[in-house]
Amino acid sequence: MPSDEPLLLTTQRFRVVEVTRQLPDGSTRTRAVVRHPGAVVILPVVDDRHICLIKQFRVSIGKILIEVPAGTLEPNEPPVKCAARELLEETGYTAARLTPLHVVYPSPGIMDEAMHLFMAEGLTRGEPNREHGEEIENLIVAWDEALAMIDRGEIRDSKTIATLLLGERRRRAGFQPVQT
Amino acid sequence: MPSDEPLLLTTQRFRVVEVTRQLPDGSTRTRAVVRHPGAVVILPVVDDRHICLIKQFRVSIGKILIEVPAGTLEPNEPPVKCAARELLEETGYTAARLTPLHVVYPSPGIMDEAMHLFMAEGLTRGEPNREHGEEIENLIVAWDEALAMIDRGEIRDSKTIATLLLGERRRRAGFQPVQT
Repeated sequence: MPSDEPLLLTTQRFRVVEVTRQLPDGSTRTRAVVRHPGAVVILPVVDDRHICLIKQFRVSIGKILIEVPAGTLEPNEPPVKCAARELLEETGYTAARLTPLHVVYPSPGIMDEAMHLFMAEGLTRGEPNREHGEEIENLIVAWDEALAMIDRGEIRDSKTIATLLLGERRRRAGFQPVQT
Repeated sequence: MPSDEPLLLTTQRFRVVEVTRQLPDGSTRTRAVVRHPGAVVILPVVDDRHICLIKQFRVSIGKILIEVPAGTLEPNEPPVKCAARELLEETGYTAARLTPLHVVYPSPGIMDEAMHLFMAEGLTRGEPNREHGEEIENLIVAWDEALAMIDRGEIRDSKTIATLLLGERRRRAGFQPVQT
């Protein structure tokens, strides 16, 4: 990320910078952009029929959302390592296999965050190591029930909808993950 | 949105505020949150086999993304009215029917933005009315090709992936939109 962007704000989890761009007609446009370190998103496949979702309170909207586990990349942290760390922290699971599903941009209109999506398989259960203030609980649900929760509007987190529907599409196509 | 949140930054398209929350153990946690007016996302169904995507340069990531049309809500603007406006502005199409598909949160970890997703049908072609600096072009693609573009990683915008897969799920289920 260029260092010559004027800095408007620094917070614990993101910065806001001013980006100036020259348009084809020669004029320039200036925009505030949120710079984010990137994130991982994990779809934990518990067995042939079940996945693990989490319920967590989201301060930004003042509501509990049902989501797949996710977390922010540490500086220079490889996404797959971050995915293993966040899966353990948020759900207590350790995965034998973490298979990349996709890399997506959640809000490219104002933010540069890239989300690395993984499918987690071969899970071993342990104790979650949640950060102070993370009010999270696990929710083991059948695939079909998760899809019905999307249709009924009970799942409203966009990354969770994209990840579940991508996972389901791979599943229907007979997706074979890499063997460990 | 509460007015007692300390304001950290105001930009043209969003604000950043400080939100303090009391945890169950009595301690408090303070976080910077991006306050966003909300947005609409439109899936333009051109005919039985084709949809309309757009290609646009995204300043935040410095790349061209393939997306469904979308735009930001004006103050007090009903989402369906905004969807009609943004569809016309970005693609030139007017829709006979705008059917709500879902309401999703793209980045609830740091931002309160809600996206209202619509399926647009009964399209009439006209001239787009793009804002100065919007470098957008239409892309008419078959449904199956759009899904293949997701699988090949050519579509990386999260709202577009969620909207296309939700639309495809409705389509397979024989979704009958409201008649005009």
